[in-house]
Amino acid sequence: MINVAIIGASGYTGGELLRFLSNHSEAEVTTITSRQHEGKEVYKIHPHIRNSDLIFENKQHSKIDADLVFTATPHGASMKIIPNLLDAGIKVIDLSGDYRYDDITVYEKWYGIKHTGEFDAVYGLPELYRDDIKKANLVANPGCFPTGSILASTPIVTKKMIDRVVIDAKSGVSGTGVNPNSLTHFPVCSDNVVPYKVTNHRHMSEISQELNKFDKDVKVSFTPHLVPVIRGIISTVHIFLKNDVKENIATSYLEKLYQNAYKDEPFVEILTDGEMPHLSAVRGSNFAHIGCFEVDNTGRIVIVSAIDNLVKGASGQAIHNMNIMFGFNEINSLESWGMHP
Amino acid sequence: MINVAIIGASGYTGGELLRFLSNHSEAEVTTITSRQHEGKEVYKIHPHIRNSDLIFENKQHSKIDADLVFTATPHGASMKIIPNLLDAGIKVIDLSGDYRYDDITVYEKWYGIKHTGEFDAVYGLPELYRDDIKKANLVANPGCFPTGSILASTPIVTKKMIDRVVIDAKSGVSGTGVNPNSLTHFPVCSDNVVPYKVTNHRHMSEISQELNKFDKDVKVSFTPHLVPVIRGIISTVHIFLKNDVKENIATSYLEKLYQNAYKDEPFVEILTDGEMPHLSAVRGSNFAHIGCFEVDNTGRIVIVSAIDNLVKGASGQAIHNMNIMFGFNEINSLESWGMHP
Amino acid sequence: MINVAIIGASGYTGGELLRFLSNHSEAEVTTITSRQHEGKEVYKIHPHIRNSDLIFENKQHSKIDADLVFTATPHGASMKIIPNLLDAGIKVIDLSGDYRYDDITVYEKWYGIKHTGEFDAVYGLPELYRDDIKKANLVANPGCFPTGSILASTPIVTKKMIDRVVIDAKSGVSGTGVNPNSLTHFPVCSDNVVPYKVTNHRHMSEISQELNKFDKDVKVSFTPHLVPVIRGIISTVHIFLKNDVKENIATSYLEKLYQNAYKDEPFVEILTDGEMPHLSAVRGSNFAHIGCFEVDNTGRIVIVSAIDNLVKGASGQAIHNMNIMFGFNEINSLESWGMHP
Amino acid sequence: MINVAIIGASGYTGGELLRFLSNHSEAEVTTITSRQHEGKEVYKIHPHIRNSDLIFENKQHSKIDADLVFTATPHGASMKIIPNLLDAGIKVIDLSGDYRYDDITVYEKWYGIKHTGEFDAVYGLPELYRDDIKKANLVANPGCFPTGSILASTPIVTKKMIDRVVIDAKSGVSGTGVNPNSLTHFPVCSDNVVPYKVTNHRHMSEISQELNKFDKDVKVSFTPHLVPVIRGIISTVHIFLKNDVKENIATSYLEKLYQNAYKDEPFVEILTDGEMPHLSAVRGSNFAHIGCFEVDNTGRIVIVSAIDNLVKGASGQAIHNMNIMFGFNEINSLESWGMHP
Repeated sequence: MINVAIIGASGYTGGELLRFLSNHSEAEVTTITSRQHEGKEVYKIHPHIRNSDLIFENKQHSKIDADLVFTATPHGASMKIIPNLLDAGIKVIDLSGDYRYDDITVYEKWYGIKHTGEFDAVYGLPELYRDDIKKANLVANPGCFPTGSILASTPIVTKKMIDRVVIDAKSGVSGTGVNPNSLTHFPVCSDNVVPYKVTNHRHMSEISQELNKFDKDVKVSFTPHLVPVIRGIISTVHIFLKNDVKENIATSYLEKLYQNAYKDEPFVEILTDGEMPHLSAVRGSNFAHIGCFEVDNTGRIVIVSAIDNLVKGASGQAIHNMNIMFGFNEINSLESWGMHP
Repeated sequence: MINVAIIGASGYTGGELLRFLSNHSEAEVTTITSRQHEGKEVYKIHPHIRNSDLIFENKQHSKIDADLVFTATPHGASMKIIPNLLDAGIKVIDLSGDYRYDDITVYEKWYGIKHTGEFDAVYGLPELYRDDIKKANLVANPGCFPTGSILASTPIVTKKMIDRVVIDAKSGVSGTGVNPNSLTHFPVCSDNVVPYKVTNHRHMSEISQELNKFDKDVKVSFTPHLVPVIRGIISTVHIFLKNDVKENIATSYLEKLYQNAYKDEPFVEILTDGEMPHLSAVRGSNFAHIGCFEVDNTGRIVIVSAIDNLVKGASGQAIHNMNIMFGFNEINSLESWGMHP
Repeated sequence: MINVAIIGASGYTGGELLRFLSNHSEAEVTTITSRQHEGKEVYKIHPHIRNSDLIFENKQHSKIDADLVFTATPHGASMKIIPNLLDAGIKVIDLSGDYRYDDITVYEKWYGIKHTGEFDAVYGLPELYRDDIKKANLVANPGCFPTGSILASTPIVTKKMIDRVVIDAKSGVSGTGVNPNSLTHFPVCSDNVVPYKVTNHRHMSEISQELNKFDKDVKVSFTPHLVPVIRGIISTVHIFLKNDVKENIATSYLEKLYQNAYKDEPFVEILTDGEMPHLSAVRGSNFAHIGCFEVDNTGRIVIVSAIDNLVKGASGQAIHNMNIMFGFNEINSLESWGMHP
Repeated sequence: MINVAIIGASGYTGGELLRFLSNHSEAEVTTITSRQHEGKEVYKIHPHIRNSDLIFENKQHSKIDADLVFTATPHGASMKIIPNLLDAGIKVIDLSGDYRYDDITVYEKWYGIKHTGEFDAVYGLPELYRDDIKKANLVANPGCFPTGSILASTPIVTKKMIDRVVIDAKSGVSGTGVNPNSLTHFPVCSDNVVPYKVTNHRHMSEISQELNKFDKDVKVSFTPHLVPVIRGIISTVHIFLKNDVKENIATSYLEKLYQNAYKDEPFVEILTDGEMPHLSAVRGSNFAHIGCFEVDNTGRIVIVSAIDNLVKGASGQAIHNMNIMFGFNEINSLESWGMHP
């Protein structure tokens, strides 16, 4: 049994960490912090979690005693906390963007923040970096959009025959976090579909970084939309072959390619025979569903992935990373299916 | 480990039984039946459940070999199946209305069906009838509205000082089942609130039967509304005292009364200090949240309960009943919290 | 053609005033004010209104030159502006609560504000006070909940045989206004139903004031709920007869009573033959639909009304009042039907 | 004043024709037909339209006496009705797909129906074919997706520098029509995003036909999604330049190009300065909003359009066509703004 602390536990990802970890057989949450909600019981902030004795603390990070810390802190805040934790011998899984970049200048450009806490981190997408995660002291948990996009694109990108990947993503509103703003006001976002940061969302740089590792020439475009959904991301990935590709890329080829790529993965499900991914099939769960695999008469390939942005796109993946780092059963506490309907 | 069969497993309650039972440590589903979907794998109908080897069968009920059968069959169908199962020594939990009534003529009046399969059954609301459930061979699982309404009303009704209970309930659309109709068509029920069967919903007779056991004179009114919500029932219970009541009924009295009534219950949570029940706090879980406990300047008492209609209002409660009948830990497979947000 | 100014034109009710008045044949909006949005074009705030030359001004109210001013200002702000406008000979329709009360101490109690700008006002519910509105200089436009509740209750309350009226109302989220807060955050209010101010909503005092004019003894209870709907209020009115009432109150009696009460009203539609009011049937329009008229076996009468909270519950009714005050055709600019689906 | 008949008036497009035409100053609906609802009053089917004396008739089409007929009939049914109407000297606007194709074999391939009623028709997109519509006896009203897609693409496609147009469209559920099915069941489509007919939707052939008139080499791909929205289509159009294009395509170039293309159009609004189209801004109205005009670092251009699928995408555009055919003011009965929020 390891002791776990969650720094910044009052947001949605903090709530999801608590929801899953309450069923974990080898990890126990012993500390939760929140400046704003110091002294409150868990259920005052997370009304679904009713039997916890934990109280939000405004604890100095240097006083945290744990085997592992999840930092569910904003971009820019994580880098100020994590080096001290690592120096104290505590392993860290960071849910912010601070440690996701190989090249710090890319981070600084897209986040507009000077990076002051450099440290070696592993990009925590288990399907790509499991072996590195096992040995890591610091794991940078991927962004929600990158998780869905990279899983849907990598198997075909590795074939080095792709010219362009255009990701048109549709995200539930919980992806914006727990704080209300004018875009998340129900009368505004209900019955609406809102494209935003159409050509300059930060997650595009994270997706490019990863896909370009597998094919440095592939061009990556990304456009997110806010849809009137609480949880979930549907990524519709439009893929275009290089002009000189001779292979005949058919549905059956793609199905086999993806099945093979993920055949040992506990949380990736390849849908075949025309079954389309549905948000309800992954809602609340750590599963990624990938399907569609169609090719149109212009040669465009379409792959679709569905994830829950708060689980596979955040807290569930973070626990998966913990399970790998500590040698636990990878699915410990993450067994539950999606909630359909 | 017991063997469990689900007759009529292709609907929403069948899906929920499968979702929870997949995590049960002492029960295994070995047979699922569906006439319509014979031969199909589970995920073809329940797209979130991906690793089951079960195939929908169109099995003669006399050939079912199990320790327990859940009948998730329509009203009128259950009574034709269950007597044979019981005669064969199989325990049964029925999710239809067929065995919920003490007086068969009340059933026949409200359901418009001649009852042809009479048998002794226990009304499966664990909070009221746990001891009888332990010994039962046939449990009639309560309706969704009655579950939320009875839990919110019983503690005060037992005081025999109530003249009238008026339940104004708001239900998610999954309560209508898996088959689409003109009322559940998204363009019709989204952005709408639809009162229906305002004075003559069947569940009123079930609620009356139970409340009148605790006070035969209390008048019960019930009006349901369909709201644009997938899962969940909020029951706003307006309660009026008899004219001759002298006690001063204050919030603190009510909070204590309800806390005491449910103090040993694993799935009932009493919310105090003005915390209002939220559907998201119980979504997907077997918990009932009861709160509000306000009294207005005309003497009206208001109690509010929140449940998930498919879980505490159906399949979760059915599994709770199974756990009681077989002496399992009552919360086995039902530990998970609600899904907020 | 009269000149109209809107003070506080940047909120939802301001937008609705502009939407309807753009089609009015005898009134022209010449001034719109907003402190926050001074200098901006209309479409920057109301993205659907594209051809207006109006610019939001931060104008001193003493400099407003108009035949009529709509004050779409917050409670407490209206009373500081209106006396000066009236002194300058300008007619005013106030959309706040400041002038809705006959007894200023009731206002002060429920709004927690000292009233400093007393003036004679007419309560602007045309169906009840048309003749007074014709002659008024200051009309207090009713609250959204009171509009739906009073229209659904008055015809039967005037019969002086009612003991109690219990209004269980379900409101769309636009009723909370244009500013986001933690309750209107999409992940919180979508897929949810939230009872709020269950026994102490301000509008209860407004409803009581009006119903008690028709029967001073009738007891009034009111509980609102927020539902995941953009616009609209369904008021489910549970009505209980006095003990000594001998009449047999049947559906046909109620239908006739209500048809008669509203037979000359351009914006009230009585639904009969079991047709239930739907929000989509009144969405975006100034119509109130009233129906249900059922009586249950305990003697409870149920009446249901549907209005659009921003139109019949606010801006549409305000324009209706303007039309009456200035002798225009009552339906001028308000002809359009609801938007179904 | 002309007399208008609507054949197939019981669906959503029939309801919208009735809603707008009730405010038309030069056209009166004199006949509405429906086999299923023969003998019923309008409000029984369209609950928002309350003062019409019209009764649904099951009239032989040869007995229809009108200046204009709207055929709101299914694909395949229109072609059996329309030739007779035209022979009788009646003008027709057809809302089905039967007359949208220049090449009948394309229609037969995509609709799987043998075309048996060939006749010359004008494709009724006023922004492209106004002069032809003026003289037409038969107008084929465009599909909903094609309307949004073609308006968003044509100005740049005419420049003959585009290699590929990829349209990722998100449609409200009313686009599927008035009849419920398993995809439109609220528990299934609420909180979900469903890609469908990802590479083979009929509307792709209609979009291609039109865009290829302006550049026969441009490749067109189209993927629709069902989103939990009642009305509206957001079309996110990803546009890729030919390799040899030398021009520097910037936002300002695109804004000017589109403003110029639509400068005289009463129902097309070009949004600039980063304003993004919103469904609520066009909801219930005949306006198309086109905006975004961004270019990403791979050279991808993004244009976004918003329309109401039932209005600009169907009935509103049909009335616009009528206004053009009969020389009425083009905006007659279509003046109303969108309904925000």
